[in-house]
Amino acid sequence: NHSVPIAARVTVSKDESRDFMAVFPDVVRDLTNATKAYNCNDAAKWFAKALQYNVPRGKKNRGILTVLTYKNLVQPQDLTPENIKLAQYLGWCVEMLQSFFIMSDDVMDNSTTRRGQTCWHKVENVGLTAINDALMIENAIYLLLKQHFSHLECYVPLLELFHEISFITTCGQSLDLLNSYKSVADFTMENYKAIVDNKTAYYTFYLPFAIAMHLAGYTDPEAFRQTKSIVLEMGHFFQVQDDFLDCFGNPEITGKVGTDIQDNKCSWLAVVAMQRANAEQKQIMIDCYGKSDPAKVDRVKELYKELSLPSTYATFEEESYNMIKTHIQQTSRGVPHITFLQILNKIYQRDA
Amino acid sequence: NHSVPIAARVTVSKDESRDFMAVFPDVVRDLTNATKAYNCNDAAKWFAKALQYNVPRGKKNRGILTVLTYKNLVQPQDLTPENIKLAQYLGWCVEMLQSFFIMSDDVMDNSTTRRGQTCWHKVENVGLTAINDALMIENAIYLLLKQHFSHLECYVPLLELFHEISFITTCGQSLDLLNSYKSVADFTMENYKAIVDNKTAYYTFYLPFAIAMHLAGYTDPEAFRQTKSIVLEMGHFFQVQDDFLDCFGNPEITGKVGTDIQDNKCSWLAVVAMQRANAEQKQIMIDCYGKSDPAKVDRVKELYKELSLPSTYATFEEESYNMIKTHIQQTSRGVPHITFLQILNKIYQRDA
Ligand SMILES: [Mg+2]
Ligand SMILES: [Mg+2]
Ligand SMILES: [Mg+2]
Ligand SMILES: [Mg+2]
Ligand SMILES: [Mg+2]
Ligand SMILES: [Mg+2]
Repeated sequence: NHSVPIAARVTVSKDESRDFMAVFPDVVRDLTNATKAYNCNDAAKWFAKALQYNVPRGKKNRGILTVLTYKNLVQPQDLTPENIKLAQYLGWCVEMLQSFFIMSDDVMDNSTTRRGQTCWHKVENVGLTAINDALMIENAIYLLLKQHFSHLECYVPLLELFHEISFITTCGQSLDLLNSYKSVADFTMENYKAIVDNKTAYYTFYLPFAIAMHLAGYTDPEAFRQTKSIVLEMGHFFQVQDDFLDCFGNPEITGKVGTDIQDNKCSWLAVVAMQRANAEQKQIMIDCYGKSDPAKVDRVKELYKELSLPSTYATFEEESYNMIKTHIQQTSRGVPHITFLQILNKIYQRDA
Repeated sequence: NHSVPIAARVTVSKDESRDFMAVFPDVVRDLTNATKAYNCNDAAKWFAKALQYNVPRGKKNRGILTVLTYKNLVQPQDLTPENIKLAQYLGWCVEMLQSFFIMSDDVMDNSTTRRGQTCWHKVENVGLTAINDALMIENAIYLLLKQHFSHLECYVPLLELFHEISFITTCGQSLDLLNSYKSVADFTMENYKAIVDNKTAYYTFYLPFAIAMHLAGYTDPEAFRQTKSIVLEMGHFFQVQDDFLDCFGNPEITGKVGTDIQDNKCSWLAVVAMQRANAEQKQIMIDCYGKSDPAKVDRVKELYKELSLPSTYATFEEESYNMIKTHIQQTSRGVPHITFLQILNKIYQRDA
């Protein structure tokens, strides 16, 4: 691995995370009050439970990224407590969008655990009500936006962004679901890129940047275009890295044992392996990929090594780091380079 | 039953329905093109299938009501082909919202048929992908609104209305789900009203009227308040009627055999029965309601008759018809009375 100067490594400070969490009770209060206003007291109580269980979980990277980016984009005199609170509300909207996707995805995949706890739909007395709870969280985003942002110029761009990103993510999810029935022989790099961009990168990388830009008063479409192009490259790399670590990462560091091979996932490793494989090796992939038999899983891992995928990955990592850095330095429309570089370096130092 | 003058009975003309259907291919084309633009060709193909299967089904009352109301609201010279097409697009947005709710509800209820065909999630190779397909349909509404309405003054009010109605409906759905675990002893008229309003009446009755008003240029909040109050009264009556017919309707006319008693539904009949029952009769309800045993179902029906619910219903129907008519005649803010009366009479002549 290339080395990243320690000084450039951003970790979210405890303070930042605590300040962000401190706003969550306000979010819950706003939303339960709104629910009660429709004479739905029982639903309001249940909704508060669903929000508490599902939203303020995990690392909250997307929400905190929204706030940090906003702070990078505005002048010090604009960093008023009111504006920071608005950025934090937007961060919670991103986290709610993520919760909505995760809760529905876990039902569709019949998953059992998520972020170290039982999936919501597997909790006693929840079951498929989880689908409606996810929908309440999704639609509550627009309630918060109306309540706190409708007096601002960025209101309509924010609405349109949340709509577009939601639609794109469901398109990516659809591609992913369709792909899961395909044979590894039909995986393509083109499809891989479309799944990665649409299912994950738009909402994980572009959304936090773009809403921070809107709140900071950016309106130039070219600035958004440049940002999109850079952060989707980062998102793409992030996913390749995730796929690599799923197979070759250290479970003691990543905290999880990968199952992409068993799950017939259209991963970067599988796609590159099929590109590189000769007829005989292709047949091994066809025979062994997407099976739960441990011997077959090991055979795929062996083949990955025979095809030198770890060294291909190392080269890819180096090159994509340099390429993204160059692209960042070429941007011209006012988003400070440091804003992107912080995130880039954060991604490149990750081992989990 | 009181009689409604034949002349006042509105049925949707075949022409109206055919004109409305004629716009659907444009909707599908807009949405599949947008999906393809995100490099999701496979998803676009699948999405077209999901739209075709789920959206242009049933009577399309809500969509056609949108168009008819719009035509009632504007001056003849404003009835241009362009404006009518916009009203039809809005009608399809309402139908899409309805499809999204139905598809998710059918998954949550594990239903098998809907509108005379297999539920989407029970179709081969669909399964829980139906959840994502429902989400695509939901979010595609905003894609259509942006594409066709973002240049109009009514754009933001339309967005906010779809958001609010979506949120309200998920609140109503949540109440309904929570209520389904309750004992009939805990049903209340207050809860009944909250479920009916939020789960059904807002999106079925208020949404078509309100979006037609927005498109027709209405902006006076008092006009919307008056409309909401009248159409929610109609929606409430519509549901009471639906509950009555579920038990006492003629299956040869309604086309369905009711199961509200077996399903432990918080129906108007159950709520009124519990209000009227003496201790002994309450115990019969507690013992027999929400059970599939046919003898218990019959015992509940007997009790309903012992408590004279059919005649209570007849009185309720008469009184609510007169009350709503009076309220319509009291409205003053420009929505022509005939617009409401047509719908009122359409509801009151229904036997299915
Ligand atoms: Mg999953
Ligand atoms: Mg999944
Ligand atoms: Mg992974
Ligand atoms: Mg149902
Ligand atoms: Mg249901
Ligand atoms: Mg019914």
